[in-house]
Amino acid sequence: MTHTRVCYDCGARTTAPAARCDCGEPLWLDTDPGTFDWDDVSDEPGMWRYESLLPVSRPAGLSAAAGGTPMVSDASIDAVAGTNVHLKLEGEHPTGSFKDRGSALGIAAVARGLAGDVSAVGTVSHGNMAMSTAAFAAAADLPCLVLVPDDIPPERLDVIDQFDPTSVTVAGDYGRLYEQTLERGPDHGIVFLNSDVPLRVEGQKTTALEICEAFAPDTPDALVMPVSSGGHASGAWKALRELSEAGAIDRIPALYFVQAAACSPIADAFEADADEVTRVVGGETIAYSIANPDPPSGTRALRAARETGGAVVAVDDDAIRTAQRALAVDAGITVEPSSATALAGIQQLVERGDIDSDDHVTAVLTGTGLKEASASGTRSPSTDHVELANLEDYLTGFTSTDD
Amino acid sequence: MTHTRVCYDCGARTTAPAARCDCGEPLWLDTDPGTFDWDDVSDEPGMWRYESLLPVSRPAGLSAAAGGTPMVSDASIDAVAGTNVHLKLEGEHPTGSFKDRGSALGIAAVARGLAGDVSAVGTVSHGNMAMSTAAFAAAADLPCLVLVPDDIPPERLDVIDQFDPTSVTVAGDYGRLYEQTLERGPDHGIVFLNSDVPLRVEGQKTTALEICEAFAPDTPDALVMPVSSGGHASGAWKALRELSEAGAIDRIPALYFVQAAACSPIADAFEADADEVTRVVGGETIAYSIANPDPPSGTRALRAARETGGAVVAVDDDAIRTAQRALAVDAGITVEPSSATALAGIQQLVERGDIDSDDHVTAVLTGTGLKEASASGTRSPSTDHVELANLEDYLTGFTSTDD
Repeated sequence: MTHTRVCYDCGARTTAPAARCDCGEPLWLDTDPGTFDWDDVSDEPGMWRYESLLPVSRPAGLSAAAGGTPMVSDASIDAVAGTNVHLKLEGEHPTGSFKDRGSALGIAAVARGLAGDVSAVGTVSHGNMAMSTAAFAAAADLPCLVLVPDDIPPERLDVIDQFDPTSVTVAGDYGRLYEQTLERGPDHGIVFLNSDVPLRVEGQKTTALEICEAFAPDTPDALVMPVSSGGHASGAWKALRELSEAGAIDRIPALYFVQAAACSPIADAFEADADEVTRVVGGETIAYSIANPDPPSGTRALRAARETGGAVVAVDDDAIRTAQRALAVDAGITVEPSSATALAGIQQLVERGDIDSDDHVTAVLTGTGLKEASASGTRSPSTDHVELANLEDYLTGFTSTDD
Repeated sequence: MTHTRVCYDCGARTTAPAARCDCGEPLWLDTDPGTFDWDDVSDEPGMWRYESLLPVSRPAGLSAAAGGTPMVSDASIDAVAGTNVHLKLEGEHPTGSFKDRGSALGIAAVARGLAGDVSAVGTVSHGNMAMSTAAFAAAADLPCLVLVPDDIPPERLDVIDQFDPTSVTVAGDYGRLYEQTLERGPDHGIVFLNSDVPLRVEGQKTTALEICEAFAPDTPDALVMPVSSGGHASGAWKALRELSEAGAIDRIPALYFVQAAACSPIADAFEADADEVTRVVGGETIAYSIANPDPPSGTRALRAARETGGAVVAVDDDAIRTAQRALAVDAGITVEPSSATALAGIQQLVERGDIDSDDHVTAVLTGTGLKEASASGTRSPSTDHVELANLEDYLTGFTSTDD
């Protein structure tokens, strides 16, 4: 049995296990929140506490570790941001990023036959999603095909390969590869869990569900998150729509999405008041994992920001670096540069008045910095050196300076 | 106000903020579990749900993200191990290891003045503990002094330095440095939160508390964990003693500790039926983060294993590598080599009959593999390459081979 899918844009429905509507826009699973209430959350671990809002119940194994990430606040970060910031630590996942939610759900659905007759899963990615899909496929004993761009750094491929997928470097346009796998995969019995497909987006809903539950019976004023393909953004929007429809939240928080200035097609479209996101020629940015010049769910994310009263903004690498360092030095939190865009975005939104100083906003810190901390450029320049015999002198000097 | 401290060995008490008893053995905080029951856990996040068993309540900020790690099981791992294994994923912490529990509690206690008049925290470490202490000190706005060995790889120092501690490379014997900082730190207003000090061990209790709560009202048969300094081992033992004293568990699970064969002073002492652990000359091992030739709480860990009916075993690098790969390929879990010793140890304990096939044992996977996955040596040797124009042919070949 497959689920009916629905187009957020034209409203068309299909029972085919497709990722795209005939109109070209991405599909959602057509799910009904019914009379969901916060009392309906279950005792299942992590994201599975919302099983009544999900199309599949929890399978055994690693999926129990998806979701359930902490949310913390830090007075120094509030001061830096100029508002009340709640930091959602999505890095605390088995493979270190929010992608595990979508992988867990997508692979559970495939393993239960909800995506039809399937012999393998796959994905097109150069980083977090590839690692996440490979890990959850390994846990579910499903063959996994990971298609990566030709120029992937070898160390990043090593990280993916530890879970023993079939990894393939592909020469050619990355955007076309992404769409071709969605079109051609089903005929070969492969479900490509690319970043904005219905099954992955359905798992990505749970980030927003957890955030809203943490504020219940209140509702946060805004969610601020990095945006790349638009898959996570679509998941957040779908979650908020379902919670509102069920009456579990009394208003819909604003969705703000943040891009790197060097590659910001969705922010550009928002700024230009355009109806659609169009492909750009992207430049280099330290936030490489969100630098998507042709986001497949870009227009859907644009709509999510507009319809919730949010916005899409772009931040430059200096702002990203400053935010990344503030998270580490002020709050003790290590994130990848793309995740630091959330804090940089909040700063910009407060400065221009979109977010008020007494608002409560959640910054979704999408991925840990542990994978690349040594390459983060945040290192302080000097390290002292002492001989053990001189330790006492050093300690004396240390506290008299630091006091 | 400081807490009274008590020697597990000779029973002496002191109100001084010392790490060592006059008899030379490490001290514990003298805490009283009272009538603790599982119904007494609070709604606080993570490890702070056990606040009635902890000497300090939760501070603001990052500490809310310490503890609360998932526990998962995987049928393939059970088959590999020959028993029922519950995998405790301690890598899902802000800095990727179990050390965050002890850092969170230790720094909270220092910030609240429970360790006397203190102007800074410090630690002696070459890896996980240094990173963890630096992160939690940054979050608490406390100056932090990190003393690392002279030969630390630069990339590991970069990871620590992102939180902006004062990091110092020290030339000289590591074991002497460890003890000298404990002796001399207080006179300089620096609390060294080294791995087996009372305040860190008190936070490390919470690993075992979470494990036992997950099994309640039953009790797991055994906890299996890597051992290095003996700090985490001591924390687990203290937790089990307190739970038993309060009547929250009806029997004490066996504590099994695992070392790398190349550097196994505690396993050697256990095997030799010795009363004390003595320093060894350690060899090279991939599990470098637990290769401590002179563990400061070695004798305490030895006693913990004996008094709970457990054991201390050693596993060689081949067994560690095999276990690490099984966790990744079968269960989708990436761990550092030292953490994989827990699974390798279970395999050995099942083979020799210490653990039965119908037992329920928890493997404490102490740290994520994300920090060093590219250096893990677990990579599969071959990566395919295709041109986008040939994708269709590749997909056809992929599923016909994999079916």
